[in-house]
Amino acid sequence: MADLPSRVDIHEEGPREGFQIEPGPIPTADKIALIEALAETGLRHIQICSFVNPRLVPGWADAEAVAGGFRPKEGVHYTALWFNENGLNRALAFADRLTLGGSISLAASNAFSIKNLNRPHAENLEAMRKQTAVHQKHGIKVTRVGVMAAFGCNYQGDITPAQIVQTVADGLAIAAEAGETITDVSLADTMGWATPIRIERGVAAVRERWPELNIGLHLHDTRGLAVANAHAGLRLGVTRFDSTAGGLGGCPFAGQKGAAGNIATEELALLCEEMGIDTGIDLDALIEVGRMAERIVGHALPSELLRAGSLDAFRRKAA
Amino acid sequence: MADLPSRVDIHEEGPREGFQIEPGPIPTADKIALIEALAETGLRHIQICSFVNPRLVPGWADAEAVAGGFRPKEGVHYTALWFNENGLNRALAFADRLTLGGSISLAASNAFSIKNLNRPHAENLEAMRKQTAVHQKHGIKVTRVGVMAAFGCNYQGDITPAQIVQTVADGLAIAAEAGETITDVSLADTMGWATPIRIERGVAAVRERWPELNIGLHLHDTRGLAVANAHAGLRLGVTRFDSTAGGLGGCPFAGQKGAAGNIATEELALLCEEMGIDTGIDLDALIEVGRMAERIVGHALPSELLRAGSLDAFRRKAA
Repeated sequence: MADLPSRVDIHEEGPREGFQIEPGPIPTADKIALIEALAETGLRHIQICSFVNPRLVPGWADAEAVAGGFRPKEGVHYTALWFNENGLNRALAFADRLTLGGSISLAASNAFSIKNLNRPHAENLEAMRKQTAVHQKHGIKVTRVGVMAAFGCNYQGDITPAQIVQTVADGLAIAAEAGETITDVSLADTMGWATPIRIERGVAAVRERWPELNIGLHLHDTRGLAVANAHAGLRLGVTRFDSTAGGLGGCPFAGQKGAAGNIATEELALLCEEMGIDTGIDLDALIEVGRMAERIVGHALPSELLRAGSLDAFRRKAA
Repeated sequence: MADLPSRVDIHEEGPREGFQIEPGPIPTADKIALIEALAETGLRHIQICSFVNPRLVPGWADAEAVAGGFRPKEGVHYTALWFNENGLNRALAFADRLTLGGSISLAASNAFSIKNLNRPHAENLEAMRKQTAVHQKHGIKVTRVGVMAAFGCNYQGDITPAQIVQTVADGLAIAAEAGETITDVSLADTMGWATPIRIERGVAAVRERWPELNIGLHLHDTRGLAVANAHAGLRLGVTRFDSTAGGLGGCPFAGQKGAAGNIATEELALLCEEMGIDTGIDLDALIEVGRMAERIVGHALPSELLRAGSLDAFRRKAA
């Protein structure tokens, strides 16, 4: 049996991912209530909103109201997402309550870059150079390289470990030119192409080249393999995972409506806790918040665990 | 990276599991259509019905019509389930088209045995002695020991590897007394308590004691971990898995309505095929049959892959 880490950091992205994809309007008060409930479960990292163009993403037209409206809990890091200087400026207005960090976001698939970012990889590198300069201008450290479509792409097909490594190298070069130090790399299975073997090979290739970098995984459950992929990451010592309560989010890239989104936070937490890996999370409380998220969005979420309940709940009854 | 097997045998149980739990009546013709479609996907083992008391399981009141009505495909093994001599006699009427094998079915949890089988483990051993004699009387070889609740139990809590080993030993003793040779042991995660570590420890314990036995896994996705658990089994060289198309079946034991049932055949097949393990299955054809199963039962099934589609479908488009 492989050595598993003793603890992991789970970064909850349910509010940000979930509320941008839901078709109907979600009341601001409900968004705030979910964020505050999540903070009571032991989660220490919560991405609360996206400062994006409200005409393109109407679900986040109330980003300011959410970012300014929730009651922060001590010890919890609240983060947000932005894609340009305008978004960053909006986030900076909440610098007293948000943890703001800069990222260099690239895609390992050129076809995905074109389809999703509207620019080929080479142009995206140039855009990331400019965005890094913007971050520096505002005193935001750039510490993270994100690689989208790291394990495969609906528009390009398979992605090799060498392509992941090249993409990370491209991001590190931008940071180095700007004098920034990258500490974290996030590999995203944006369209659900990962398998345990692809995770092993991709993570191993990045780690072999840059043993000093922390590697995180952003997994989607598009084809039901997210938990197996998380387990493969854990076995390689990965200790940072993004996830969403209940599996909030859906996948806009899967090519079919209704496809699952991120790995569900509570299923990831169950996997970890039942194997002796500390997440800091009260799983029964988190399951209740997942059910609350279902009530807020008005439909069932993909997480099976929400329906079945935790094992501890049954252990208490059986004892 | 662990050695993975080069091929696995997937035993499809969707028709039997799925049609017994659906609330509404399913037309016999639909059941037969699904069985015949499954046989065209490359699956070589299909459990088609349950010869049970129609008053207790109205969904299988038409077991005879199904068993006699489908057109068998050469090379495919069709199996059925029964729990007593009456059921076996009904199955024997179709001995020309069904593959009939005897099992000794035990539960690793005494509490589950009482709740589900209405008798404690000791009485169940006696019942299995009698059933083995019945099988022998009808010329049916008993080659398999099945262990329910092998990885945990909603009524008893955790189950240790030693308890699994003891249950297998009890089954082997019954076979030995009767002069039967057991070749296969099936460990069932009846209520979704397994984690990759529990699979590793349970399978390793049985294998260490009886290296000559083939070990199969019957996994439920009650808490979203079924694919991760299957991967743990594959890494230990397990080559036989039960599953259901689309995740047909639900879990009557999960303690909450709507809880997921068996691991979905197409997600298991995707896991295998994408890691170079041959299943003999045409995955795109199987996904179409999963969607057909959704139409037959009239609601969405738990499999995420049914909504996302296979990777090969996207590879062809991207090429």
